[in-house]
Amino acid sequence: MKNISKKVIIGIDLGGSSIRAGSVTKEGKLRNFKRVEIPKGRRKDLVLLAIIDIVRELITLENNRGNKVVAAGIGSPGIIRLDKGIIVTSPNFPGWRDVPLKSLLEKSLHLSTILDNDANAAAFGEKWMGAGRRVRSMVCMTLGTGIGGGIILDGDVWHGAHGMGGEIGHITVNPDGPRCNCGNYGCLEAYSSATGMVRSAIESMMNGRRTILKRLSGGDSGRITAKMIYEAAIKGDRLSINIFKEAGMYLGIAIADLINIINPEMIVLTGDVTGAWDFFMPAAIEEVEKRAYKAIVKRTKIVRGKLTGSAGVIGAASLAWKQTGYISP
Amino acid sequence: MKNISKKVIIGIDLGGSSIRAGSVTKEGKLRNFKRVEIPKGRRKDLVLLAIIDIVRELITLENNRGNKVVAAGIGSPGIIRLDKGIIVTSPNFPGWRDVPLKSLLEKSLHLSTILDNDANAAAFGEKWMGAGRRVRSMVCMTLGTGIGGGIILDGDVWHGAHGMGGEIGHITVNPDGPRCNCGNYGCLEAYSSATGMVRSAIESMMNGRRTILKRLSGGDSGRITAKMIYEAAIKGDRLSINIFKEAGMYLGIAIADLINIINPEMIVLTGDVTGAWDFFMPAAIEEVEKRAYKAIVKRTKIVRGKLTGSAGVIGAASLAWKQTGYISP
Repeated sequence: MKNISKKVIIGIDLGGSSIRAGSVTKEGKLRNFKRVEIPKGRRKDLVLLAIIDIVRELITLENNRGNKVVAAGIGSPGIIRLDKGIIVTSPNFPGWRDVPLKSLLEKSLHLSTILDNDANAAAFGEKWMGAGRRVRSMVCMTLGTGIGGGIILDGDVWHGAHGMGGEIGHITVNPDGPRCNCGNYGCLEAYSSATGMVRSAIESMMNGRRTILKRLSGGDSGRITAKMIYEAAIKGDRLSINIFKEAGMYLGIAIADLINIINPEMIVLTGDVTGAWDFFMPAAIEEVEKRAYKAIVKRTKIVRGKLTGSAGVIGAASLAWKQTGYISP
Repeated sequence: MKNISKKVIIGIDLGGSSIRAGSVTKEGKLRNFKRVEIPKGRRKDLVLLAIIDIVRELITLENNRGNKVVAAGIGSPGIIRLDKGIIVTSPNFPGWRDVPLKSLLEKSLHLSTILDNDANAAAFGEKWMGAGRRVRSMVCMTLGTGIGGGIILDGDVWHGAHGMGGEIGHITVNPDGPRCNCGNYGCLEAYSSATGMVRSAIESMMNGRRTILKRLSGGDSGRITAKMIYEAAIKGDRLSINIFKEAGMYLGIAIADLINIINPEMIVLTGDVTGAWDFFMPAAIEEVEKRAYKAIVKRTKIVRGKLTGSAGVIGAASLAWKQTGYISP
């Protein structure tokens, strides 16, 4: 295999608000990182075009350096049919149904393309280049708008029998809890995602709880974001601090479940919400220690991801590197 | 490999009230099934002696037929250190701590011995010779005094990073639920095991609920058993019927979690409690369909085990057959 160091793979992270992409070398080095906004209206053809544009730009950059782009990997939230490269449904793109993203991209780019769930990609990225480099089994939880999960067993992503495993955002943490977007009640995602915390804040405000969120949002509860709750918590807002505590508590219940069921070496938490680590994590750890088998929990590392912001891009590329057979993480 | 059909392995199921054992051929055929009561007081030396007696008896039977016993496999509830063949703790034997059962048996029997968790053994038995013969991934739940779990992935038991995976009886199904023997609150086991249902019955009776259990138990709530609740349910006792419904509902929550997390091909339910299938299973299925991802759940088979009563024995032997390298289920 000549000039193997000149081969690169494009990783693409199809997110809720933006498309991120970059070239990733066989050694896991990320370069030429790009980010564009998701086109307004989230129309399939426009999103596809935006992806193609960003990948073409990266291909040109690599070609000019004398490098060869050998494949692309793309991670998307939602239910994915891996074998066919189809997005069945995606919470980020409500109008999309059975979109054959893999073949659409392959036809336009003339580039072998891997499609996987974004949380699986992030997990594999953290395994390859991040927090999980030295472990063989881990569960990676992506705490963002929603909550995704990727399970690594024996060094590889566990996709499940039908490619749909790892939906850990939909563990029931409270059977009588609020309705989740998935239709279930009391899912982890309904409490500990950014969306869940905003719901919690709005509910408390409707119940007349005092909070500076009222002022921060200009009195319009529709404008509240998780970031706003974080800023209010920093300022000592009691309600916001408690929302993070509650999110942490339910997160802890789910982590305890995962430890008891899977007994992984490591739990990795990644995603934007982990920016508020100190506000939710003590409550999570307290709950894990209360609920998981002591003999197991004391051997389980619970850590923050190391690739924040680029986990999805590096991860999607790592899955493609893996499938091309060049790396065997 | 000559005379391979004449080799047999002894499977042993160290249960809560009895020790079951039998010879198992390479083809998975069980013969000379024996069952003895656990010696009163559950003293380690007496239990060990009882196991040795039953195995020696089976060895003699096989030798007289001209067969050779090549190994033994034993399944025990509790936290097991697989690498060392030690029972760390076991709910059935409260006084036991770090019992090196594997080496104790090997020294007495001069027979290579495999020790594993009883639920893992049952799962592997069902995979090898029972309901899971045609699947590559499944979760087997053993509903008895407690609730055990065995996870089969890619055709093999997933033991977890430290041999402690599959503790699915301790999934939190209701964070504010009753205290479980493990120290946690609201575990599946606290609702849907025989013990959990008895607790539920006693609690309801203390709250003044009318039930024929009062008469069946002779007014002594300490004498209530799961079997008695089952008999009362058959007679139309409303309280008993509802206890099974509640057990089914919480079982459904846990099954939905497992489907969303692991996405196995099959969920297998085994253990004595499954005798009351029609009383708890409709509620369980209703809950699963409400809570698990529709796209996943419609592809998941949820079935009753086929080796009831002998799953533990066949399973323990199957693990030993696997480790000796003769079979590769």
